[in-house]
Amino acid sequence: MTLHTEWLRRALLATALTMAGPALAADDGKVANFLLDNGMEVVVIPDHRAPIVTHMVWYKIGSADEPAGKSGIAHFFEHLMFKATTNHAAGEFDRAISDIGGSNNAFTSYDYTAFHETVTPSALELMMSFEADRMRNLILTDEVIKTERDVILEERRSRIDSNPEAVLDEEVDATLWQNQPYRIPVIGWMQEMEQLNRTDAVAFYDKYYRPNNAVLIVAGDVDPDIVKTLAERTYGKVARGPDLPPRIRPVEPEQNTRRTVTLTDARVSVPSFSTQWVVPSYHTAKPGEAEALDLLGEILGGGTRSRLYQQLVVKQGIASGTGAFFQGTMLDATNFTVYGAPRGDAKLSDVEAAVDAEIARIVKDGVTADELEKAKARYIRALIFARDKQDEMANLYGAELATGGNVRDVEEWPDRIRKVTADEIKAVAARYLLLDRSTTGYLLPQQQAGN
Amino acid sequence: MTLHTEWLRRALLATALTMAGPALAADDGKVANFLLDNGMEVVVIPDHRAPIVTHMVWYKIGSADEPAGKSGIAHFFEHLMFKATTNHAAGEFDRAISDIGGSNNAFTSYDYTAFHETVTPSALELMMSFEADRMRNLILTDEVIKTERDVILEERRSRIDSNPEAVLDEEVDATLWQNQPYRIPVIGWMQEMEQLNRTDAVAFYDKYYRPNNAVLIVAGDVDPDIVKTLAERTYGKVARGPDLPPRIRPVEPEQNTRRTVTLTDARVSVPSFSTQWVVPSYHTAKPGEAEALDLLGEILGGGTRSRLYQQLVVKQGIASGTGAFFQGTMLDATNFTVYGAPRGDAKLSDVEAAVDAEIARIVKDGVTADELEKAKARYIRALIFARDKQDEMANLYGAELATGGNVRDVEEWPDRIRKVTADEIKAVAARYLLLDRSTTGYLLPQQQAGN
Repeated sequence: MTLHTEWLRRALLATALTMAGPALAADDGKVANFLLDNGMEVVVIPDHRAPIVTHMVWYKIGSADEPAGKSGIAHFFEHLMFKATTNHAAGEFDRAISDIGGSNNAFTSYDYTAFHETVTPSALELMMSFEADRMRNLILTDEVIKTERDVILEERRSRIDSNPEAVLDEEVDATLWQNQPYRIPVIGWMQEMEQLNRTDAVAFYDKYYRPNNAVLIVAGDVDPDIVKTLAERTYGKVARGPDLPPRIRPVEPEQNTRRTVTLTDARVSVPSFSTQWVVPSYHTAKPGEAEALDLLGEILGGGTRSRLYQQLVVKQGIASGTGAFFQGTMLDATNFTVYGAPRGDAKLSDVEAAVDAEIARIVKDGVTADELEKAKARYIRALIFARDKQDEMANLYGAELATGGNVRDVEEWPDRIRKVTADEIKAVAARYLLLDRSTTGYLLPQQQAGN
Repeated sequence: MTLHTEWLRRALLATALTMAGPALAADDGKVANFLLDNGMEVVVIPDHRAPIVTHMVWYKIGSADEPAGKSGIAHFFEHLMFKATTNHAAGEFDRAISDIGGSNNAFTSYDYTAFHETVTPSALELMMSFEADRMRNLILTDEVIKTERDVILEERRSRIDSNPEAVLDEEVDATLWQNQPYRIPVIGWMQEMEQLNRTDAVAFYDKYYRPNNAVLIVAGDVDPDIVKTLAERTYGKVARGPDLPPRIRPVEPEQNTRRTVTLTDARVSVPSFSTQWVVPSYHTAKPGEAEALDLLGEILGGGTRSRLYQQLVVKQGIASGTGAFFQGTMLDATNFTVYGAPRGDAKLSDVEAAVDAEIARIVKDGVTADELEKAKARYIRALIFARDKQDEMANLYGAELATGGNVRDVEEWPDRIRKVTADEIKAVAARYLLLDRSTTGYLLPQQQAGN
């Protein structure tokens, strides 16, 4: 039961998205995609290199879908789903997995909640059976609610409240997003988590934990026809729920200001900053813009070959770390981020100015044909490594389908990246990365108070 | 149909609250307070100095009560309520008022929407009859919605979008408030206002425009028993609506950061800043804290006798304007604000540092017995003038009753102010006015970009 904190999520998405390439459908066969009669979508990704299978269920419900004042309830279910059902005692599912040497976990994000197991193919039907059971048969007593609520409250205290960086990130997010619900932390606001109760939980479960709001992803040493038979035998028995309304959420108004959020804390040793902009996601962008933002992130700050790293870390030697990323796989508008921290005697303001200068250089002069080709090539290389990671393949399809995309979007993605031109990258930098309309978070040691 | 912008609201409340004193119940008789059978609350404030009467209906519905994604709908009703009903054509009510030489208006805020008329006492029943009619009998056609929606969109363009100060205020509010709905502008976000439709309007009207969600305030040359008879004859005929749930809204989490929001605009000639803190309101505060905040605002920055004015404008001569205020009459947590703008060659940063120094001085040394007595006395003096303003008396009762208070709260208010000690003022300054947990807005001329 892992909460996907923003950091973790970014790491996952950065990996997932950079692995896109020509052979996303594994060599072993075409990706299958179909619906069960009850509306549950299924994706099967054959991968016969090893006798393992990754089984995931993605619910199209995340923190950004929560009712007002009920923040944290989506993540709460990441916990509650491991409790007793009418058919199985709490812990029975976990034990069944560890008995066969498998592994499992779950995570929650703004747009989805997912549960996954990696096991031998012979155990797939058992996994499906357990997962289909807990989709509808959880026993949500007051006692269960109280116990798990204490767990998530403690999780918040240890992961957020005792961590200056996490505290800052929360308030930066809520400053960047002034209307769109990504401003609300996935784990929830403490005072609202404390009030979550059985009535809230039952209503949420009955509304969202339904086959017609779920996507099943099976990747591994399996045959799509057999997966279909097994899925019909297990998930197929779960009754379809009421149709859900389209996921139309409050939209972010245009930003007209430069915003800063500063946390000064005695526990911080090295100062750092990160600047964010609201930009379109794959789901909201005009054709080509999201792809250009991805390559902009790669060229500006994706790893050690990027402009930021080469200029600030290698050449000037003023930064201990710096980079940029674009968080593209989101249902609504998303963020583009740059960050940096000083090294040695360098000041934070020097690092920030140098990052700003690199952005200004792209806005003014664009990127070269050579670095664009190399950036595109890095996607292909990343893919070669990523193909060794079955769970990342599953994650990529699951995240895409849970944020408004489809299997074709995943498969066509490499070609869409290949089509991006240098002019398009310059254009998105000029259009979106405006300092007068940015949001910067500063994490400062105590002695730097007053910055 | 005036939108109470934040500025207007602040001015109103500053006036309303400073007019509190021993004789709030006018000399002419005791304030009467009763319920009609359908749940409508009535307050009658006799005031026989002149043959006029102020008639107000306050609905306990404001922008902070709006459904997610429907911002602006509360203020939309401030407009829609002037359209045709099943009994009267559009404009008929207005004409009836101007025919008898009366005046009328309406305003919307975070916690309420109010409609008022000032007329001769003989016209009171006619006013009640019109007002009771439009409480339930509006004809909300698609055509009416479209026409008035164009009006509010134009109102937003002219009042907010073409005014740098208003644009900044909006984004400062949404940065100060990260969860509580006061972050949403009363007029609404443009992209949501554009989508408001007949279905939204009918649902909103049917839910909130009901006698059991309204307060009638009648101040003037009237007898409470006669007002009661007239109210029963008019409003009393309107059927009670379904009970509304308690107005429990998302609560603001603790602020851990210092936040800034900067708007640089060529239309700005003189730079200015304002710093805000989240503080308790009269409705949420522990006993004594809101009263202490009110006197803190008065001593620190309430007018020309305040510390800020005397120090920055009179003594140092660095500010063209500076002050402080506390916006106490709110249903949920509210804000305490200080502001300033430089004069002559002084820099904005000098003014800000001088304001900070005055706050630090109160946090460290408190206030003197003499200035505390004088601040309290200013309330009494303000009252003497305010008693000439019948509509302000009505506003004071209406705002209090629409934000969780009652008639006794208004009447006991002067005594509660008198009890505040210097230690309590020092304590609230020390507890709430922390720069590391503040939100500052900067309005800068173009040439100061980068400030």
